[in-house]
Amino acid sequence: MTNKCTHAIGVDLGGTYIKAGVVDSTGKLLRQSRVSRETEVEKGCDAVVGNVVGAANEALEKSGLAWDAVCGVGVGSPGVFDPVTDMLVLAPNLACLVGRPLPTLIEKKLGRGLPIHLENDANCAAFGEKWAGAGRDAKNIVLFTLGTGIGGGIVIDGKLWRGARGSAAELGHQCVEVNGLPCGCGNRGCLEVYASATGMVRRFIEAVRQGRDSALAPRVKSNQKVTARIIHEAAVAGDELAKEIEDQTGRYLGIAVVNMINVLDPEMIIFSGGMTASGDALLNPIKEEAARRACGLGLKGVSIVFGKLGNDAGLIGAAGCAFSRSGISA
Amino acid sequence: MTNKCTHAIGVDLGGTYIKAGVVDSTGKLLRQSRVSRETEVEKGCDAVVGNVVGAANEALEKSGLAWDAVCGVGVGSPGVFDPVTDMLVLAPNLACLVGRPLPTLIEKKLGRGLPIHLENDANCAAFGEKWAGAGRDAKNIVLFTLGTGIGGGIVIDGKLWRGARGSAAELGHQCVEVNGLPCGCGNRGCLEVYASATGMVRRFIEAVRQGRDSALAPRVKSNQKVTARIIHEAAVAGDELAKEIEDQTGRYLGIAVVNMINVLDPEMIIFSGGMTASGDALLNPIKEEAARRACGLGLKGVSIVFGKLGNDAGLIGAAGCAFSRSGISA
Repeated sequence: MTNKCTHAIGVDLGGTYIKAGVVDSTGKLLRQSRVSRETEVEKGCDAVVGNVVGAANEALEKSGLAWDAVCGVGVGSPGVFDPVTDMLVLAPNLACLVGRPLPTLIEKKLGRGLPIHLENDANCAAFGEKWAGAGRDAKNIVLFTLGTGIGGGIVIDGKLWRGARGSAAELGHQCVEVNGLPCGCGNRGCLEVYASATGMVRRFIEAVRQGRDSALAPRVKSNQKVTARIIHEAAVAGDELAKEIEDQTGRYLGIAVVNMINVLDPEMIIFSGGMTASGDALLNPIKEEAARRACGLGLKGVSIVFGKLGNDAGLIGAAGCAFSRSGISA
Repeated sequence: MTNKCTHAIGVDLGGTYIKAGVVDSTGKLLRQSRVSRETEVEKGCDAVVGNVVGAANEALEKSGLAWDAVCGVGVGSPGVFDPVTDMLVLAPNLACLVGRPLPTLIEKKLGRGLPIHLENDANCAAFGEKWAGAGRDAKNIVLFTLGTGIGGGIVIDGKLWRGARGSAAELGHQCVEVNGLPCGCGNRGCLEVYASATGMVRRFIEAVRQGRDSALAPRVKSNQKVTARIIHEAAVAGDELAKEIEDQTGRYLGIAVVNMINVLDPEMIIFSGGMTASGDALLNPIKEEAARRACGLGLKGVSIVFGKLGNDAGLIGAAGCAFSRSGISA
């Protein structure tokens, strides 16, 4: 790391794909540097580390920059990291990495003497949106990632709050139904069970099986795949059940918004992840339900918005974390 | 404020009573200094300010110390304060104080040129337990106050987290039943509706009215007063319904414990307030339900305990806040 460094490499390490890119100190992703490759988790830890390093090398090459322009590498990954040792202690989709010193392994393989910053992927998304996206002007943010599951990130006083054990902001696992459906995490009635893409699809299929009519009913009955996107498209095309199910998803999320306002009182709640492609059809019921349930000061002074960085939030945030660690203020 | 100052005055400003006492820099309350008087909120703001100042004067007199030993006065009060202006913006039980500059009014009336620190009462309890009680060795604490309602305080990295608008840690208003009973706050299914003393009594009375047998049934049927304490005593005496209702209260709180662990990942959860007098009959079901529902890292590294300062937590914490503000590390 030299004083000439102006950029960081962000890596989004997923269970299936690794994405990487080069980001400047203002949070701008150099488009031409964006690369993607398979994680190959089935080949084991060394292969995954090799792919992370390969993606980082390729991203830098495509950026046209030299290594001395790079302040560090930020890696966002699902799972829980010990905040002291940086060791991955829990990662259902990257089990081979648990208990391995990932930053050290990456640094060794990369061989550039650069700081490697490891961070939970949803935390990266929160930091990315705070640094260079919807949350630029906010100091206190709660971000929900909406996809197959629901994750989250919390920024307090401008800094990521990782928790005492590194496992804070598991926002999908707040119980909203005491006697609700079992969740994969072992709890019952978690928000994720109802409001994730998976939960939305499940509620839709259940409604059809209970006899509700929908243009998608034949699809359900013939066991063809139904996704959150397909339900959204049906809703846009006027399907009443699809509209109702999507609306309900927003209402569950609105309840979680109020929970987070009552617990943390941030000035901004951001939604990120694939489901935000639904736009106002999802955002409006979120806001309406939050307005209906808000206590005390209500929603005054609280913004409820979708992220601005789309799928790049995690990658940009990972790079931002690398800048923070390298001493450059992100 | 001089360098000789060694003590702070803590004031617990409630809707009915004002309690005050003198606290040393280690968080020890001087027993002989403990005083109490009526708030007299019906007489208006000037009377309340007069009573706060009267209680502070009386506490110091009883302590035998001189004013130059006092670093400042901390006042804990229900309600929401603007974190920038210190102005009370919301206080259902102290409506006459809303929009008034309480610290300035107190300082003027007291006339000692001392810093006056105003803080939410549940925040004071959390700070008190962190400073001199159950949370001495913890840096990250979530504290629930259990009484007529449920409040809370959050300590992150050793500091109180007040929220962007000063209204964080309203822990009783997390929704645990999407379609649950309406709460006084405007939301539905709030924890407070089920697990506060009021909620526990309501569930008990409902069960009796639905035909459940209990030694307290005649009391309920003749519309005599039933309290959380009376239910606890019946449970101790072997009443099955009372035991069940108390146990259920703990289970609701255990769910909220897991919510707070999943959202904030603190190393300690503390319960404070009147209902903790029930001891293990309440604490055990809290811990059991939390263990049953904990996700990810489980409860490893998380302590779930009752506070150690009892009813003095708020008063001691208010004094601690005054020390913090005066520059002496509390």
